[in-house]
Amino acid sequence: MSIVKPSTPKGTRDLSHAVLAKRNYLKAHLISAFENYGFQSIETPSIERSETLLGKYGDEGDRLIFKILNSGDKVKNADLEALRNGELSKFTNSLSQKALRYDLTVPFARYVAQYQNDIQFPFRRYQMQTVWRAERPQHGRFQEFLQCDADVVGERSLWQEVEGVLLYDRVFSRLKLKEVKINLNHRKILAGIAQYIGAESQLIDFTVALDKLSKVGIDRVVNELESKDFSADAIQRLKPFLSLEGDFETQLGVVSKSLKYINIAQQGIDELRFIYNELNKQYLNAVSLTFDVTLARGLNYYTGLILEVMPPKGIKMGSLGGGGRYDNLTDLFGLKNTSGFGISFGFDRIFMVLEELDLFPNTLNNNTKVLFLNFGDESASFCFDKLTKLRDQDFPCELYPTPAKLKKQMNYANQRSIPYVVMLGSDELQKEIFVIKNMSTGTQSEHAIWQISKVLLELD
Amino acid sequence: MSIVKPSTPKGTRDLSHAVLAKRNYLKAHLISAFENYGFQSIETPSIERSETLLGKYGDEGDRLIFKILNSGDKVKNADLEALRNGELSKFTNSLSQKALRYDLTVPFARYVAQYQNDIQFPFRRYQMQTVWRAERPQHGRFQEFLQCDADVVGERSLWQEVEGVLLYDRVFSRLKLKEVKINLNHRKILAGIAQYIGAESQLIDFTVALDKLSKVGIDRVVNELESKDFSADAIQRLKPFLSLEGDFETQLGVVSKSLKYINIAQQGIDELRFIYNELNKQYLNAVSLTFDVTLARGLNYYTGLILEVMPPKGIKMGSLGGGGRYDNLTDLFGLKNTSGFGISFGFDRIFMVLEELDLFPNTLNNNTKVLFLNFGDESASFCFDKLTKLRDQDFPCELYPTPAKLKKQMNYANQRSIPYVVMLGSDELQKEIFVIKNMSTGTQSEHAIWQISKVLLELD
Repeated sequence: MSIVKPSTPKGTRDLSHAVLAKRNYLKAHLISAFENYGFQSIETPSIERSETLLGKYGDEGDRLIFKILNSGDKVKNADLEALRNGELSKFTNSLSQKALRYDLTVPFARYVAQYQNDIQFPFRRYQMQTVWRAERPQHGRFQEFLQCDADVVGERSLWQEVEGVLLYDRVFSRLKLKEVKINLNHRKILAGIAQYIGAESQLIDFTVALDKLSKVGIDRVVNELESKDFSADAIQRLKPFLSLEGDFETQLGVVSKSLKYINIAQQGIDELRFIYNELNKQYLNAVSLTFDVTLARGLNYYTGLILEVMPPKGIKMGSLGGGGRYDNLTDLFGLKNTSGFGISFGFDRIFMVLEELDLFPNTLNNNTKVLFLNFGDESASFCFDKLTKLRDQDFPCELYPTPAKLKKQMNYANQRSIPYVVMLGSDELQKEIFVIKNMSTGTQSEHAIWQISKVLLELD
Repeated sequence: MSIVKPSTPKGTRDLSHAVLAKRNYLKAHLISAFENYGFQSIETPSIERSETLLGKYGDEGDRLIFKILNSGDKVKNADLEALRNGELSKFTNSLSQKALRYDLTVPFARYVAQYQNDIQFPFRRYQMQTVWRAERPQHGRFQEFLQCDADVVGERSLWQEVEGVLLYDRVFSRLKLKEVKINLNHRKILAGIAQYIGAESQLIDFTVALDKLSKVGIDRVVNELESKDFSADAIQRLKPFLSLEGDFETQLGVVSKSLKYINIAQQGIDELRFIYNELNKQYLNAVSLTFDVTLARGLNYYTGLILEVMPPKGIKMGSLGGGGRYDNLTDLFGLKNTSGFGISFGFDRIFMVLEELDLFPNTLNNNTKVLFLNFGDESASFCFDKLTKLRDQDFPCELYPTPAKLKKQMNYANQRSIPYVVMLGSDELQKEIFVIKNMSTGTQSEHAIWQISKVLLELD
C-alpha cells in the first residue's frame, strides 16, 4: 500500500484536546441554559433525502449543499444527456439521492411535520449539530461547523420572544461576555414601510437591499433600490428611516408616528413595544437592546420579530447569533398553521470572541492529577494496584507505561500539565514510603505508603 | 414550492429527547471513564480526502464508503470512458475527491502521523464520533452511527493491555451491566499455531476462517480451510485447538505445551500470562476473562493481544466491543515504529443491552420542574418575573405561553412529565397567594406569594 501524505480536506479541521476542552465549556453553557429554559434536545441525521433539502435555500444554497454519490451500480443511471447539455444539477441529481445537512432549520421543520402526532406542542427543542456547506474555505470559515438552535413551535405568544432575548442574556452573562448588543426589528414594520413608500409588491427586493445597509452604507442601498426600479419618490420617503437617532423608545415613537395609518406596521410596533417593555422589567446582565428599523435579515421565512446579536464594541466580527418569529416554516412539509420562534448561537464566532477576550478559564485543559513514575515491573505492579483504587474513587491518574529514563517520564508529566508525580521504586517499596513531587513548584515530600490514597485524594 | 413528504433516508434515524437522554447517560459514563484513565479527546473532520480512506478497509470497505460529489463545474471532469467500460470506481473517483469517515481508526492514524511533532507520546486519546457506512439498512443496523474508541500509541507496554480490560470493567460496572465476558487471545499464538500446523504462509486465510468458528461451527471452518488448500495433516494438527476445555490457565497450559518449541507462540503466551496475572490481582466487578484461542478478529493490523467483549449470557447479540495491540497502523501515513493499543465500545449495542435489561435510570427524561399556568398577560407578567429569578438560580421552569384552556395547559404538563404546576391568576394575585399542584398525586397547596422562590426551590 502506498504511503499517503496525512492531511485534511480544505475547509475542515482536526480538533485537539485543548481546543475541545474550550468547545465543551461553551457547549455545556449552552446546554445548561437551554435545559433551564425547558428546551429539549433532538438530533436529526447528517444525511437527508435530497428533496428535503434542495430548493429550500435558494439557488446559491443548492449550489453549496454537499451531495452524496449513489453507491454501487446506481451510478450507471448517470444522466449523460444532461451532462452534455450542461445541465449540471440535473446530472448530479441523477447520481445522488442524499445530501449532507445544510442547516438545522429545514431538518427541524421536517421533524416537526413528520412526528406531529407524537410531539407535545408547544414543542420546545434545541439542537446542536454539525452542518456542512461547500463554501470556498477562508480564514475562520469552515465547510463543517456546529450550529446551535433553540426553537419553540406550535403557539404564537410574545412571551417566547421575551424568553429568547433572556436566553441570550443568560448564556452571555454566565460566559462573562458583557456588552453584547441585540438589535430588534419586526417584519411587519418593514412591510409597513414598504407599503408607506408604495413598494408593497417589492418587499423582498426591499429587505434584501436594506439588509446590506450596515455593510455598504446608505448610498449603495439607494443605488441598489434604483436598479430594482424603486421610484425616486419611494426612495425619498424611505430615507428618513435610514438615519433615525435616539434611544429605543424615541426611534420607535418616530417610526410609529410616520406609519400612523399603516395597519400592519402598527401591529408590528405594538408587538415590539410589548416585548421591549417586558424585557425592560428584567435585569439584563450582558445584553442591551437597540431598535434597528433597518435590520431585515435575509431569511424570507420570518414574519414577526427579528433579532440579531452583535459582539461588544471593538470586536471586529459579524453577528454572534440571530433569530425571529416564523409562521409558515413547516408548510413545506405539509403542516400548516404552526407558528414558531427560534434563535441561534454562532458557536465558532462566540468561541473566537471568548478567545479574544481571554474569557475561557485556565483550568479546562487539566485532567490527570498524578503520574506514577515507572521503575520496572515489580514496583509498577504495586503502583498499578494503588492507581486502580484511586481511579475507582474518581481520582484521575496514570502510570507511565515503561521504565523509561526519569527525564523522559518527567517531561511527559510536564508536557501534559500533570501537576504531581509519585515516585515509588524498589527503594521506596523497601522503606515503605513514597515521594510526591509538585511539578510546578518542584518541591518534594515523603509519606508512608499506607497513607497513599489519603494523601493523594487530599491534593489540591 | 411543492410539498415534500417528510421522511429520513433509509438507515438513518431521528433521535427524540427521550432517546437522547439515555444516549447522553451512556456517553457521560464513557467520557468519565476515559478521562479518569487519562485519555484526552480529539475530533477529526467528518469528511476526509478520498485517498486517506480508500484502500484501507479492503474492497468491501471501499464499496461501503459514502463518497461526496464534487461541487460545481468539477463534475464536468466525469470519466465517461470508465463508465462505458464498467469501471465504476474509476468513474466515481473522477466525480469525488472526498468521502465520509468510515471508522475512527484510520483518521486517528492520519492524525497521529500529521501532528507527530506536536503530540506528547505516549498519546492517550479517545474519540466519540459518528461514522457512516453504506450498508444495506436492517434492524438495529444504521448507515450512520457513533463509534467510541480509546487508544494509546507511542510505547509498547503490557500495562496498557491491562488498563484496557480494567477500563471495560469500570464502564460496565458503573452502568450496572454485570457478567460481561471478555475473550482474550494473542496474534502471536495464532501465528505459532499456523507455524505448528505448517501453514505459516497462509496466516491470513487461517485467521479469517478461524474467526467464523463461533458462528458456523468446526465443520464449516474445516471445510473453508480445505477449500483454501490447507493439507489434511494441517487440519488434523489444528483440531485439538478448536475444542479446548477448562479454565483460563488450564487452556493456556495446554496450548503452551503443544507449542513448546514455537518461539513466537511462547512470546504471545508470556505476554498473555502477564496480562492475565496482573488482572487477576485486581477485583473485576463486571467482567470475567476467558482465553479463547480461536478468537482471531478480522482486522489484519493487530499484532499482539486481541480481545472481544461479549454480552451477558442470555442476551442475543454480537460483541459489545473489542480491540487489540497493533504495531504498524501509522505506517500508512509515513510514521513508523509507533506501536499502539486500542479498544472500542459498541455504543448502539451497549445501548440496546441496557434497554433490554432495564438499566437506564427512570429519571433521565425529566427536566422542567414547574410549569406556571398562564391566566392572561397581567398575571403572566408577574409569573414571568418569578420564573426568570428561579431560572437564574438554575431552577428549570416554564410559563405556558398562551392563556389557553386550563385542560390544555394541564395536559401539556402531563405529557411533558412536569411534576408541578403553579396557579397564579388575578384572584391569587389579589389575595397574594399561589397554588401548587403535584401532578402525580393531584394534591394542591396554597402559599403566600412572597415565599414563592423558597417554596419552589425546596420541592423534591
